[in-house]
Amino acid sequence: MLALISSGVAVTRAEIARHTGLARSTVSHRVDALIAHGFVDEDTEAPSTGGRPPRRLSLRTHGHAIAGVDIGASHCRVGLLDVKGTLLAVREDPLTIADGPEAVLGHVERTLPRLLEVADGTAPRTLRAIGVGVPGPVEFSTGRPVDPPIMPGWHHYPVPEFFGERFGVRALVDNDVNVMALAEQRRAFSDALHLLYLKVGTGIGCGIVADGHIHRGAQGSAGDIGHIRVGERDEPCHCGNSGCLEAVAGGAAMAARLRDVGLEAIGSLDVVRLVREGNREAVRTVREAGRAIGEVLSGLVNFFNPETVVVGGALSAVHDQLLAGVREAVYGRSNPLATNVLRIEPSRIGENAGAIGAGILAIEHALSPAQVDRALATDATAV
Amino acid sequence: MLALISSGVAVTRAEIARHTGLARSTVSHRVDALIAHGFVDEDTEAPSTGGRPPRRLSLRTHGHAIAGVDIGASHCRVGLLDVKGTLLAVREDPLTIADGPEAVLGHVERTLPRLLEVADGTAPRTLRAIGVGVPGPVEFSTGRPVDPPIMPGWHHYPVPEFFGERFGVRALVDNDVNVMALAEQRRAFSDALHLLYLKVGTGIGCGIVADGHIHRGAQGSAGDIGHIRVGERDEPCHCGNSGCLEAVAGGAAMAARLRDVGLEAIGSLDVVRLVREGNREAVRTVREAGRAIGEVLSGLVNFFNPETVVVGGALSAVHDQLLAGVREAVYGRSNPLATNVLRIEPSRIGENAGAIGAGILAIEHALSPAQVDRALATDATAV
Repeated sequence: MLALISSGVAVTRAEIARHTGLARSTVSHRVDALIAHGFVDEDTEAPSTGGRPPRRLSLRTHGHAIAGVDIGASHCRVGLLDVKGTLLAVREDPLTIADGPEAVLGHVERTLPRLLEVADGTAPRTLRAIGVGVPGPVEFSTGRPVDPPIMPGWHHYPVPEFFGERFGVRALVDNDVNVMALAEQRRAFSDALHLLYLKVGTGIGCGIVADGHIHRGAQGSAGDIGHIRVGERDEPCHCGNSGCLEAVAGGAAMAARLRDVGLEAIGSLDVVRLVREGNREAVRTVREAGRAIGEVLSGLVNFFNPETVVVGGALSAVHDQLLAGVREAVYGRSNPLATNVLRIEPSRIGENAGAIGAGILAIEHALSPAQVDRALATDATAV
Repeated sequence: MLALISSGVAVTRAEIARHTGLARSTVSHRVDALIAHGFVDEDTEAPSTGGRPPRRLSLRTHGHAIAGVDIGASHCRVGLLDVKGTLLAVREDPLTIADGPEAVLGHVERTLPRLLEVADGTAPRTLRAIGVGVPGPVEFSTGRPVDPPIMPGWHHYPVPEFFGERFGVRALVDNDVNVMALAEQRRAFSDALHLLYLKVGTGIGCGIVADGHIHRGAQGSAGDIGHIRVGERDEPCHCGNSGCLEAVAGGAAMAARLRDVGLEAIGSLDVVRLVREGNREAVRTVREAGRAIGEVLSGLVNFFNPETVVVGGALSAVHDQLLAGVREAVYGRSNPLATNVLRIEPSRIGENAGAIGAGILAIEHALSPAQVDRALATDATAV
């Protein structure tokens, strides 16, 4: 019913009854409940001119907000969205994820109320749901990180309960590349039902949208491509194997290679800086990393047959060089049928992709039929 | 509504009204239509003892049949299933797919009526829908093969129209490994929402079930893993590249290797025979092929994170040797989180997987809400 209203397909009680085949009384009962719970607004009645004009329904955007939280290794970005997914406000702060969940989530806890006050300059908004992206594996059903390598202290930490106790709303937690993939698919590439989002930063990860939905796999570890072997390479990897994609083509590996030839490069951002300065060694390194990524990607393209591959992460700042290598390898190696209409493009959403994607995740959950039913069945006003 | 009846969740008009929130009159109207169109049966009224006992509804299995057709390179298997997916009869004949669609489909056309007559020994059945699996890429929306390498004459052939004109029913056409994956998932591994089906025969292909649905990808070429590069290998492949999985570990490649050492081996079945005879060279070849398959699969397991990988095809007849190599490579190389609960198992459905899977594909389509709505909206009795 919300989908009909939101999409504009049916925006009056009569139209909804016609579209769903539900009895008029059932529809009216349900619409009243949706209004009472703040999901939907109904027009004030227009002045009657002859017959009584039907009152129009719309998704309620004012008064409410959904938070989208993007937690990175060294930053935290908190966004506020309305229920249609429009970004109302966003704030980024430096932060060390290794300081542990209490410190990091405490920061989010302090930031959110301030954002809710200012938001889009109108009246304060009520928080309805929270989406969170973190840089590690998450058991999606419980929202708990599972042995996240760069998040000491976060293993099994009950992130949803942290927010539930403080804000009284549901929080959904997911891997950061999953929500970034969701943001790119929903906002920039909505014609691509099957999309891969490659994040090339210090490490390398992949978010998967299959048939319009995030594919998380059996243990929620789908897209963990950083340790796929690149053929004929044997760079040792911190995971204990060798030749892993991350050890060959991650930002940290690129920086290490540039240090080896005497350049000053601590991390991904230095690689980006050197490429922008026109350093030949850096350009060559990024291009070669692109080829290694493309070699692995060519197999995934054959297997998954996506319409679109989006490349994001710190290294996408120099996507001219990176994508040249990626495309070269993929188009040279993948099945022609799979590359026929394949697009390989830099991120379009950019730095807010994590916060927006986390917010979209929370909105889509809150507006799902099961959740709406649950909200209507109780007296609680929180979705 | 059919799902409620089929699963036994709601089997009377009153229960359906309660579960769906639909008005009683709407439910009764729709149930009458389902009965009239032959989807559903209703109990004859039981003798009244006090109140009138509610009449129970069930999916109609008698009188109807769905065909599942498995077309291979050199065989054709035609199965008949009832609407619940029970295999009623099956018949296999040798056949050459390269003889072209008229010859092959003509054979199916002649076989079907005979199967419908005998089926399970009861009265003749009416054909309601047809599912077809073919060994090549298919544009699923139109049911037409697309440049299938081993199917000369089949490019863009309108298979659904062939059957539609002759039997007046809808035919769905899909790649054979897709329907085999579906059969294994629905019948043998229904607890695995994410499943890969590897067919190791002359060539190597993969069927993908993601979140319970066949994943076909953007051009329907998903699962085409035969030309993924095996690291450090350079066997020339007929596709023009080198080191392709199929050229390294397919049945044809294995047979060629055994011929090189003086053994008599024309195809996959000879490899199987030699292994069964205990030939060491053949055992070693199959085990090494397993390792190469496992090397590629380890990357796909990291990417897709399936619960279950099922290995079928001619070579699965010697799965002890094949799976030893596959498991060795996957467990040695994939992320521990992804292999935690991963099962790698031989096919459980066996030789009828293609026919059963094609039948299930047709049944699930025929009973989908959109198709049922369409059937009810017309006077046609064919689903």
